[in-house]
This record gives sequence, structure tokens and C-alpha cells, in this order.
Amino acid sequence: MKVLVDCAGGDKSPQANVEGALIALGNFDDLSVILVGDEQLIKTELERLGCAVNERIEIVHAPGVITGEDIPTDAIRLKKDSSMIKSISMLRENDDIAGLVSTGATGSLVAAATMRIGRIRGIRRPAFCPILPTMNGGIVGICDSGANVDITPEQLVQFAVMGSRFLESVYGIENPRVAMLNIGVETEKGDDLRRTAYPMLKETPTINFVGNMESRDLLTGKYDLVVCDGFSGNVLAKTTEGTAMEMLKMIKRDIYSKAIYKFGALFMKKMFKKEKDFMNYQNYGGSVLIGAEKVVVKGHGSSNATAVSKCIEQAYRMTLGGMNEKISESLAAIEAAKHPAE
Amino acid sequence: MKVLVDCAGGDKSPQANVEGALIALGNFDDLSVILVGDEQLIKTELERLGCAVNERIEIVHAPGVITGEDIPTDAIRLKKDSSMIKSISMLRENDDIAGLVSTGATGSLVAAATMRIGRIRGIRRPAFCPILPTMNGGIVGICDSGANVDITPEQLVQFAVMGSRFLESVYGIENPRVAMLNIGVETEKGDDLRRTAYPMLKETPTINFVGNMESRDLLTGKYDLVVCDGFSGNVLAKTTEGTAMEMLKMIKRDIYSKAIYKFGALFMKKMFKKEKDFMNYQNYGGSVLIGAEKVVVKGHGSSNATAVSKCIEQAYRMTLGGMNEKISESLAAIEAAKHPAE
Repeated sequence: MKVLVDCAGGDKSPQANVEGALIALGNFDDLSVILVGDEQLIKTELERLGCAVNERIEIVHAPGVITGEDIPTDAIRLKKDSSMIKSISMLRENDDIAGLVSTGATGSLVAAATMRIGRIRGIRRPAFCPILPTMNGGIVGICDSGANVDITPEQLVQFAVMGSRFLESVYGIENPRVAMLNIGVETEKGDDLRRTAYPMLKETPTINFVGNMESRDLLTGKYDLVVCDGFSGNVLAKTTEGTAMEMLKMIKRDIYSKAIYKFGALFMKKMFKKEKDFMNYQNYGGSVLIGAEKVVVKGHGSSNATAVSKCIEQAYRMTLGGMNEKISESLAAIEAAKHPAE
Repeated sequence: MKVLVDCAGGDKSPQANVEGALIALGNFDDLSVILVGDEQLIKTELERLGCAVNERIEIVHAPGVITGEDIPTDAIRLKKDSSMIKSISMLRENDDIAGLVSTGATGSLVAAATMRIGRIRGIRRPAFCPILPTMNGGIVGICDSGANVDITPEQLVQFAVMGSRFLESVYGIENPRVAMLNIGVETEKGDDLRRTAYPMLKETPTINFVGNMESRDLLTGKYDLVVCDGFSGNVLAKTTEGTAMEMLKMIKRDIYSKAIYKFGALFMKKMFKKEKDFMNYQNYGGSVLIGAEKVVVKGHGSSNATAVSKCIEQAYRMTLGGMNEKISESLAAIEAAKHPAE
């Protein structure tokens, strides 16, 4: 299986991207990678890691870089030599390439993937589905979390289908419990979008809809998948991440504020380390973009090598698990249920 | 100054409400309270606290209770004997009553306040503005956080004006830094609502608009007020609260998981206590409803006596600080700027 790795655009690019690719190669024997970016920089990085181009590592030269400052439509049109746009073109044109991992600018990546890569038949627009850890040791997915800010009730149903097949394919979660993000758990809560979507979700076959959920219950482990518009999903994911990070910072600062706390903390080093790792998004891969014909994973801009390797692992498992085929089957089953045979 | 205290509908009603009122009476010499609810239950509670009706404590009998199960419009029409609807009627009819504190059902309270209490002239709809602590020891307000799920750009501007005057009146924050919640900090980010509102906020006099903000920066102390639609504001506030609570639970569970951690934690008891208090919403009052002609404060359903007393304190300070008059002045200044004298 071949996966493209966009080696520019992240805070730690190309180092983290190249090193992450090598970690992933070590984990999966049937994986090979195409590193896209400035050839010289990538070669230097491979050398530093004591490695060279071989039958599992290919380099494609694309020196341009797309940043958050670029306007997506302009970037796609004008920056054809950039690692991101070059990667998207290769992904489109080569049937033997399974997917793409990028830590570059989100807006341009979504626009390029949506415009250049075909969608799964029947899917209106691809959506992001990042993963967060829950307090009972599981995970929860959030779909959408930023690709679509204005959506329809039908799209919420599609997010539920896509997210469910993703969690099954990559994490082996059977019959994922799907909840709709709302401002209260009662059936009638929310705006027109949520009130229209609620009965539709309830009646959709192939998903396990359990009702509305409030954002304060995200980490409790009661739900496997949260469906929402991209705006509030983005707020949900980033608030969780931000609050966790700020609290860990507060604890650290407090420990250093008094000698007695510092002394007590000596006995708890392992615990704090475990908690820090637990809340670190770098350990849970990226925000997978589901719904395109090919697999695309968007790693955090600040991804380190571990995070990049996890993103590649997600792309690998999404492909291996036949996620897109399963989504197509679900859509067919939903259509069939709407028009039962005479 | 007279403040109504709705003594039913909260998880700890009427105990927490009655005790909270007594705490507030102890803090402010010129305050008096009207306790609305089941007279016998309130009397029993006053007795338990060694207190009785006096010139600063009045009881109004209203035995009915509105719950989250009630449909707001029905509740208003049919439950006239409930403590909440009775309180709203008294608030409307008596000029000498400054405001109302309730820990009852949010939906019914918003509906009743919006339908029965007049709005400040020019304000389209009242909005909630809860307060959260920031990591540099300050606070941040979120307006709206649940009263209005579908809004216009003009309403976002009104939230900025109302929230700014609230933070000035109650917390003495001068020229509060206002940010708009968005999925990125760049000017062009977000949906139509945000893109239309951005230049309007920038041009509005009487507010200090500093641009877009991402939810992960909520607790950093960079902003005094976040403006957003009620849906995403609700997600923002509840996710922060939920993440903080779940993390504190995790830390507690981890400490008890090993003897050495328990030993270390002995030296850090004060620190953990401080952090728990710091993240406890009960210590920051309620979600004030701004924009109605009279002051309404919605306490959390699980409010204890301290939380209720803080809510009463907010109502007291909003009135004392002349918040509503200041909002009216701002609206006049904004209108004047739109139509400069020839």
C-alpha cells in the first residue's frame, strides 16, 4: 500500500513528516511512502536519520509551501509546485496510491481535496473526524469538526454514517453509539437544523443513534461518535484540547510555586507523565477527512514525528478496512430502505 | 434594593436558594429579598437556619414547580402558580423590584423573561453571559451561551455591547477586549454570519473589538468577552466545564490508584483544593440574562448556597452599576455614529 506524505506546511516540517514516515514504515511491512516536498531538505533529513531512498521510500520534488495565509482557491490555482497541491494531483491521478497525510494549511487541504478528488457516490461533502480520548480509556470521534460550517440535516445523517464506518474500520468499535451535539438532551432541543435532523437520524438504518448529547458529556465515554455542524464541532474539539492543555499548565505552575508541592510531586512524576500523555492529541492521530474517494488525513500543524506516524497509520487502516466501500454499502442500504421492493 | 429569589426548580431547592439568600443579605446591607415558592418549605428552611421573616425577608407563596420536562410556552400559560412564573409576574409589575435569581429550567425562564419582561429599547433579544475563570487569575464572559440559537450579525454586535457593559458594571473591567468565536483567527474565517459580523464589530463604537478567537484560547486570559451564537457559545461554556470536571476526576482516581501517589498527594492537598475551587463554576455566579428591562440571573441547576449567593450578588451589582442605562447609552451612541449631525 502506498501513502503520500506531504512534507511541508507543518511547524516541524519536513523533520517530523520524514521521521513519522519512517516510524510508520517500521510498523507496517506492506506499506511504502512517497515523500513530497523539497527534495534536498527531505534527503538531508533521511540522511540524518541514517536512511536513504529505497523500494519503500520515494521522493517527489515539490518545493512550494502553502501556508494559512494563502487563500485556498488561489493556492490551488497558482501554487501547483507546492507539496500539498502536487500531492493532491498525484492522489487523483494514481490508482495505486491509497491516501495522503498532510500537516499543512487546513483550508487549502479541504478545498483541494473537495475540488480535485472525487467524492464517494452519494456523499454531499467530505467531513473531518478527529478522535479524542475518553475518561474510561476509550475514544470518541467528532464529525464534522471544521470542513463544513453551513450544513443541512441530510449532511448530519451522512456524518453519522461516515463516522460510524470510520470507527468500525480503524478502531474496531462495533455498532458505534452516535449522538447529536445539542444544547440539551431533550428531543425538541436546538435550532431548526437539529430538530429536523433528530427524527431522520432516528430512522436511518446502519447507524446506532442514541439521541442528543450535551458537550459537557463528551469525555464521559457514553458516546463513540458525536455528529455536528463543522462550526460547533470545531469549537467542541478545540475547547477540549485547550482546556486540557491550560489545566496541565496550571498544575505544573502550581507545583513549582511551593517547595512542599515540589516535594510531593516527586512521588507522582509517573502519574503526571501518564496524564500528560493521555491528554496529548499527538498520540491520537489526525483529523481524518472522510467522504472523498481517496483517504486524506490532516495532522495538527504542530505534529511531531509520532503524530505524523499515527496519521499514516490511520490512512493505512482506513484503506485496509475498506472504509469507503462500507460507506457506499451503507448509503445503498439507506436508499433501499427508502424505496422498499414491491 | 429588592431581589426576587425563585426557591424551586434547582437540584438543591429550596435549601440552597434560601441559604444563598441569607448569605447575600449578610454581604449587602441595603439588600432585601423576596423568597418565592412553597411557603411552608421556605419557612422550615429559614427556621433550620435560625432565621425568620423580617423587614428584609419576605415570602410569597407559589407552590408549583416548573421542570426541564415542561414545554416553556405551556408552562408560562398553565403554571401561573409556579414559583418561576409568579416571580416573573412580580418582576414585571413592581417597579421597586430590581431583579430575579432562579435555578430553575432554563428554557422556561428565557421564554418567560422574553415574553413577560420588556426589553431594553433597541435590543432584539436578551442573551446569556456566563463567566469563566482564566488561567492568569482573571475572568472571561461568553455572550450568548444558549438563549438564541439562530441569530443575525446585528445580534452579535448587540451581544458585544451588552457583554461589555456587564463586565464593566459588575467586575470593573475597563474597555473589555471583545473577540468573536470563530474556527480560525483570520478575518475571512467562518460562515456568512461571522464574515458579515466581523467588519460590523470592527466599526462599532463603545466596544473594544480585537478580532476572531479560537476556542482553544478561551482560558488564556487574552480576551475579556467572547461573542457567539447561543449554540456554539453553549458548546464553548459546557465543554470547558465538562473537560475541567473530568480531568479533576481523573486526577483524583489516579491518586487513589497507587500508594506512592497517595503519599505524594498528602503534601499537595492544599494545591489540589485550590485548583478544584478555581475550576468550580459554583464560585463564579450564574448565567446572567442581559437585555431585558429587569435583571435576571440563571443559576446552574446544581447550584449550592454559595452559588445562589453569588447569583444574587451579580443581580445586585448589575443594578447598582446601572448596567441597563449604560447599554441604552451605548445603543444611542451607535445610532448617533450611523447618522452624524449635519
